[in-house]
This record gives sequence, C-alpha cells and structure tokens, in this order.
Amino acid sequence: MNPILEILSQGEEIVTGQVVDTNAAWLSQEAVDMGFRVARHISVGDKLDDLIAVMSDIAARADCCICTGGLGPTSDDLTAEAVSKAFNRSLVFDETAYEQIRRFFEKRQRRMPESNRKQALLPVEAIRLDNHWGTAPGFALKHEHCWFWFVPGVPYEMRQLFKAHVKPMMQNQFDLQPGKLIILNTVGIGESDLQDRINAINLPPEVQLGFRAEIGQVQIKLLFPSTIPQSQMEEITDLITTTLGDFVYSIDGLDNRSSGDLVAVVDRLMKTTGKTIAIVETASHGMLTAKIRTANWLTSTFIYPSITSIAKVYQVENQADDVLETSKAIGAAIQKTTDSDCLLIQLIDENQHSETSVTIVNTLLERGEITQSTHLVSGDDNRKQQMAALLTLDFLRRYLLRANSIR
Amino acid sequence: MNPILEILSQGEEIVTGQVVDTNAAWLSQEAVDMGFRVARHISVGDKLDDLIAVMSDIAARADCCICTGGLGPTSDDLTAEAVSKAFNRSLVFDETAYEQIRRFFEKRQRRMPESNRKQALLPVEAIRLDNHWGTAPGFALKHEHCWFWFVPGVPYEMRQLFKAHVKPMMQNQFDLQPGKLIILNTVGIGESDLQDRINAINLPPEVQLGFRAEIGQVQIKLLFPSTIPQSQMEEITDLITTTLGDFVYSIDGLDNRSSGDLVAVVDRLMKTTGKTIAIVETASHGMLTAKIRTANWLTSTFIYPSITSIAKVYQVENQADDVLETSKAIGAAIQKTTDSDCLLIQLIDENQHSETSVTIVNTLLERGEITQSTHLVSGDDNRKQQMAALLTLDFLRRYLLRANSIR
Repeated sequence: MNPILEILSQGEEIVTGQVVDTNAAWLSQEAVDMGFRVARHISVGDKLDDLIAVMSDIAARADCCICTGGLGPTSDDLTAEAVSKAFNRSLVFDETAYEQIRRFFEKRQRRMPESNRKQALLPVEAIRLDNHWGTAPGFALKHEHCWFWFVPGVPYEMRQLFKAHVKPMMQNQFDLQPGKLIILNTVGIGESDLQDRINAINLPPEVQLGFRAEIGQVQIKLLFPSTIPQSQMEEITDLITTTLGDFVYSIDGLDNRSSGDLVAVVDRLMKTTGKTIAIVETASHGMLTAKIRTANWLTSTFIYPSITSIAKVYQVENQADDVLETSKAIGAAIQKTTDSDCLLIQLIDENQHSETSVTIVNTLLERGEITQSTHLVSGDDNRKQQMAALLTLDFLRRYLLRANSIR
Repeated sequence: MNPILEILSQGEEIVTGQVVDTNAAWLSQEAVDMGFRVARHISVGDKLDDLIAVMSDIAARADCCICTGGLGPTSDDLTAEAVSKAFNRSLVFDETAYEQIRRFFEKRQRRMPESNRKQALLPVEAIRLDNHWGTAPGFALKHEHCWFWFVPGVPYEMRQLFKAHVKPMMQNQFDLQPGKLIILNTVGIGESDLQDRINAINLPPEVQLGFRAEIGQVQIKLLFPSTIPQSQMEEITDLITTTLGDFVYSIDGLDNRSSGDLVAVVDRLMKTTGKTIAIVETASHGMLTAKIRTANWLTSTFIYPSITSIAKVYQVENQADDVLETSKAIGAAIQKTTDSDCLLIQLIDENQHSETSVTIVNTLLERGEITQSTHLVSGDDNRKQQMAALLTLDFLRRYLLRANSIR
C-alpha cells in the first residue's frame, strides 16, 4: 500500500479565494510520482483553533503531511504556535535559524525588522529545514505515527525547500513503489461514450482507470502498478487505442513520438508533409490561430465574422441554401490570393444556427482536391468558440493522418 | 457573525495535482463578497469512505458547504452515493433529470450512453438544480443544520449552476450583511506600483483593500462596510481613480456605464464612435481577435507570423532599422485593400527581440492620421501572446478615449 499523504495549506488569502493554491497541486504531482497516495488537500485561514484541530486530525489519519504557509514574521503567521499547541511541544529559540535570518537581511543590506525574530522559534526537537531562498526556515517532526514537514507558502521557496530537504526525507522514511502512468488524449468523443467502449474491454483489476474532461477533450488515465512489465503495459495501451480508433490523438507516458497536445500532434503531421497552409476562421474568431500560436507551416490567417462578409470581399455568390458549395467557391477565390499549399476554411452555416448552437463547415483545399466535414457546436459564446477551434484543428489532424497514410 | 461556509472539491485529478483547483478560489471570492466566512477548502479523491467521512465532518462543523465534482456518469463519480451513505438517504430516480439529460444528447444529435442514466439518481428529497449547460444536474439538501449544494466540477458548468441556483438559495437561507464591494480594473501597471500609489492616500481604516493580479491586469478590491453612505464610497473611489489616472479602465460595483472587462470597455467606445476597424495581428497570433470574439465594428483580421511575411505579401519595403516607418508603409498598403474606417496594426520589432522578450509596435491609421506606441512584453510564449493581445487592446482603448474627448 502506498503511504498516505495529506497537504495542508494555510492562509487567509487562500480560503478567501484571493490566491489560487497552486502549491497543493505541485506537491501532489511530486508525491504521486514518488509513490504516495495523496488523500486530501485542506486549506484553512489564519485561525489558531482551526489550525490546531486540522493538524490533530491529520496526525490521526495520515502517514505524513506537508504543510505550506504560516511561517512568516507577522501576527497572522501561526503555524509554529499551532504545532506547539496541537502536539504539546514548547517553542525554543534556534540560534542557527536566527543567524541565517539575520544574514539574509545583511546580504541585502537591509535592517532586520524585530518581527523576524519570531521565525527562529521552532517546536522542541523539530528538525530545522534551512531556507537559503528566504527568511522563514522550515521544520520537520514526527508526531506519533505521522511525519510533518512545514515549509513556506511562497511557491518559489516552497519548491526549493521541498527539493533540498523534504523530498529526500520522504524517500528515506518510507518504502516507496511508484506506479507508471499512461494517458490517452482523445478529442471529439464524450466521457461516457469512452467509458462504454472501455468497459467492453477486460482490463486487469490492478490497472487503475481514470478520466479527465475539459471542453471537447477527454484524457483517459491508466495507472499501472510498479511491478507490471513494460510489454504488458504496452499491450494494454495498444488494445485500448485500437478500440477507440482515431479519437485518440496522442499517448503520454510511453515515448515522445506519440505524446503531446493536439497542437503538437498537428504540428508534427504538418512538418512530416512539409507543406504550408493558410486559414480562414469565422466561428472560432481567432482562437484556432491563437492555439497554434506560431508555426512555420502557417503562412497567414484571415478572420471574418460570417460567410456574407467573405462573399462580399471576394465577390463570390453566397448560395444560402448550399453552404458546402459556397465554401468551395470561397476557397477557390481565396486560393488565388495565397501561395500556400493548402487552404483550410472554417465557416458558419447561416441556415443552421440557433441561439445555443451553430453548425460549422470545415473545408480543406489542396491541389484541386476538396475535403469537407460539418460539426454542431453548442453552449455559450465562449464554449462555441473553443469547440469550433478544437474541431477544426481535429479536422486538420484527421485530414493529415489520411494524407500521410496514402502517400 | 457571518455564516461559515466550507468548500469541498472532489476528484482524483485534484488530489493528484493534475488539475489546480480554481473552483474553490472562485467560489470563495463569491461567497466572501456575499457575506460568508469561508473556513476551509477540502479536496478528496474518488474514494467513497473518504467522501462519506468528509461530508459528515462538514455537516457537524459548518453552516453550509458547496461541493464540486463527482457528478459525472462514470464509475469514479461517487458524490450521490456518498451523500446517500453519509446522510442516510436513499437514491431515487428523478424523471425530470433523466428527461433533461436525454434531451441534452438529442439536441446534439448524439445517442445517450447507458452510463448517463446514473446521473438522474438523486438523494431522496434533494432539490434538483437544473443544468442547462451540461449533462449532470446538481442538487441541494439540508442535513441537520448544514446546507449542502452539489454542482459539477467542470468550471463553466459550476459557475452557471452557481449563478442560476446556488447563489439565490444562499441569499435566501441566510441573513447576510455583505459589505459593498467596488473593484477598480487596471491594465499596464504592476501590483507593487499600485500599492505604493494607494499607500500615499489615507484610506479610512474600515475600508478593506485587496489586490488580485492576473497576466497584465490587476484588480483593486475595496470592501466597504454595509453601513457606509453611498456618497462617501463614491468619494473614496473617485480619489483613488484620480490618483491612478487612465491605468484604471473600468470600475465594477458603482454603475453599469463604467463597469466591465477590457473588451467590454473597448466595445462601448467603438460603438460611441460608430466606426469600423480592421486588425493586423502578429505577436498575439489571433488572441486579440479571439478576445474580441465578435463585434459588428470589427470587419476582418489578418494574421501573419512576422513583418517579413507581411512585407512580402503586400510588396512593401522592410526597413529593418526603422520599424515605425515600416509599420506606416504596411498600414498604407493594407488600408487600400479594406474599406474599414480604421486600421490597427500590431507588429513585432524584429531588431529588438530576444529569447525572453519582444517589442511590439502598435499603429493606428485613421483618415491619414497615424498613432503609434511600443511595448516590451516578456515571459514564456503564452505570456507574451496574452500580454501582446492585452496591450494592443489597451492601445486601442487609449486611442478611442482621446478621439472621443477631442470630438
């Protein structure tokens, strides 16, 4: 069994939402990779009673805990005092810690405020964690069966202290067996659809399956035990990938060739073809190009609000009842003005659009060949914009996959 | 005393650190502004026993709790089951919820997977919170003295359900005395600079001052006690606004005329002028247009990777040592091809760019008049893209402010 870790973040700025707690996520990733099970994140404000209660609860529940924040010099920094009350240890003045704090100010040619003296008060028999990156020393102690590490809340200092002191102690104190994580990245298929398809496969019970959805995309997470042979891990991954077909656009955790986000995958495919492309965006209003950001195969993008406006600029007949034909006509007209190898056109079907959804038409022109697809995107304006960008990018990926396999 | 709220975030992706829990921070800000005291954030993974224990603890400790996540269709979505066990309520099939989920798929012309049926199982006597933005309905219930609201973890759906259902219920169920919150939105000035300027003003001690920074923008939050007269609140706000000048682009909390994000402010200014504009983007790679999204004053956007590529397309001489002159020449050439009243050109100065920073040059052409500004943007590619979009948008805002004041 993996040892159980909890992460405690202290600070009024966190519980009031002024600061997003990125420390907890960062520490969790590190700990999971090391072979811990992270059971809880807890954030509390600068209230002594809350802190004492939370620390006592954690000591009774977890194998270890990393606590960030509350080590500063001001009156609302209560960690050492809470530890003293929760675990019944007096605070003692640490000469070495004091000397380090004093020298920190001296180096910066600043006077040390009297309030910083407080930071040298550590719980009796705690192990001091030297802070070479700021004023607040961290400390470690074991209460009954639970190890506690206390580090500053400033993300930079926290990371430095973690790497220098906490991580080595965690590895020393626990017998760890980190698992292996493989992630299948999918686009254009929903979470429940994916689950139904994967349920049809008999995964070995020791493989832990997880899903993570964001707009238009779902990650399938496979956590394998550390003891599994590489070949079996690859077999299982292959089996799922084959079942899901080209909804899977990349795989993280196996090798670098097949990994990355959708933009990275399209980038690799475009570089393989060696071709250039120009883009016309309507529905995603620049978001498609913003995602690609910069790539030497993208020569230019033209953004217009609607088919009507493009038809006017390029003097093309807008066949309102046949958006596929209009797309082709627009493509032919624009192709004359660019010298890219391919032209990708994303249009909104003006016949099909309601308040909550629009139909987008993707057209790809290359050497007289035309490939088209239509998609319904729905939601508020932001979601429609994001979905349109994603689905047009995926349309390009699928086109390139076919083109590369034909060659 | 302000009622005590706890926020519970459920999901293996949160405790393992794959996702930073931005929901908890967002909800906390809303709740604090409404007059709650947020005492704790707790995150747990997809473990039934942990969930049951946490929910029981919260019920014994807090006045209310908002719980995000775990409402999806898959086997690791355990919220309803945990509620059922923790609060001893059976799960019942909710016909209306089922019908809504079915229709969600029908509208998108997709088959409803069998696994989604589970999302219609709600704890007995829970109040269903209709989800018009996704498949998972939320629900609310009161256990002993504690109200619980359960909403999906997808941030977009969470926010919609919060605004539509949770917030009104929270206001109904508790006697709240929210302070009055005024937010000054600034762009182009850093947090410590702002702090120094505001420190020079003597704010009454009962006004709580806070800052919240994101890329390129800082919000100044002024929380006034509920008892303060409107006139005094306006006086203090005026004083700060005058001190900061046109770094303040809008004020939220006073009236609708002066509120909104940077895009909304530019939108109002453009509509006042009644003019149209075309845009040329390089540094922000589509992000500027993606932020504006759709506005009838934006006729078209042209995105190119660099000055070199634009100069080639429009057959303009690229005076490498004088980017301001090249910008004007490019503007003159492009202006002939569009029939917009104004042309906004954002270029990257190819002489000035290093690995970590680029200099962007903004040029606005209107009836033979030329206005220009340059800005240094630094950081990773994502930050540079975001900053470039923001600074060009702010350049347009400042231009329109001057143009409107001259007329």
